Amino acid sequence: MKKIVTVLAAAAILSGGTAIAQDYKNQIKARQGTMWVIALNLGTLGAMAKGEAEYDAEAATAAAESIHGASMIHLSTLFPEGSDAGMNDASRAKEEIWANFADFEAKWGQLGAAAEKAAAEAGNGKDALGPLMGGLGGSCKACHDDYRVSPS
Amino acid sequence: MKKIVTVLAAAAILSGGTAIAQDYKNQIKARQGTMWVIALNLGTLGAMAKGEAEYDAEAATAAAESIHGASMIHLSTLFPEGSDAGMNDASRAKEEIWANFADFEAKWGQLGAAAEKAAAEAGNGKDALGPLMGGLGGSCKACHDDYRVSPS
Repeated sequence: MKKIVTVLAAAAILSGGTAIAQDYKNQIKARQGTMWVIALNLGTLGAMAKGEAEYDAEAATAAAESIHGASMIHLSTLFPEGSDAGMNDASRAKEEIWANFADFEAKWGQLGAAAEKAAAEAGNGKDALGPLMGGLGGSCKACHDDYRVSPS
Repeated sequence: MKKIVTVLAAAAILSGGTAIAQDYKNQIKARQGTMWVIALNLGTLGAMAKGEAEYDAEAATAAAESIHGASMIHLSTLFPEGSDAGMNDASRAKEEIWANFADFEAKWGQLGAAAEKAAAEAGNGKDALGPLMGGLGGSCKACHDDYRVSPS
């Protein structure tokens, strides 16, 4: 037993302290699902902004509220340290996230602020959607540029 | 071309009007990810309530806020009609959801109310967690009992 504990401790040190058996499969499902919530609702807003779908104040507000709700999920659950692309094939999260977690959270907060504004204003008519989409899309891009592995 | 359209229209009628080519794969990822957000954060609260993890007011509040954020996501995105277990192997959603969508949304609203209360009170000490967990768990169960296929 003592030997097993020693081996596990050594392995933990070698792996930078990350738990060995943890694959973060469920956390990755949670965060990718959260990103899909954002993407699908941005799609709804974008279709209305471009006139591909009829503008509907209630549906636009619901879409923005959904993005706002998703943005309120804390990143500690969605991005536990060690759940990066290098350790999990299912993920495109860069290791840089954990070296810069405060910046990562600040960027997530910018999405939250843009989403709160969108939830308040998406009901104001089709023309309101373009600028609101700009704010939302900009905050998505800011984080993806720094912290997401580009598709190969 | 006309023949293809007729065939598609007939198929749409046979399938109850649901779009044929739509597999709702991304919506199912969004909703299952949302459920994982809730489950993981309930796990955090439960571990503290049971004393398996040290009580931490900030982490408990963050977990409850995350559940509250998830509960603000509108069900129209997460549960488009036709995305039930019968049509999608990945899903355990019952068809009954769409025949009772107002009830389904009301039950989701109960989760939202329990989560809002938990976010406000989870920081009040370890002993606050049990009753808050009861409210959250009860609203999960109410919906799962009626609208989720039991594991076989």
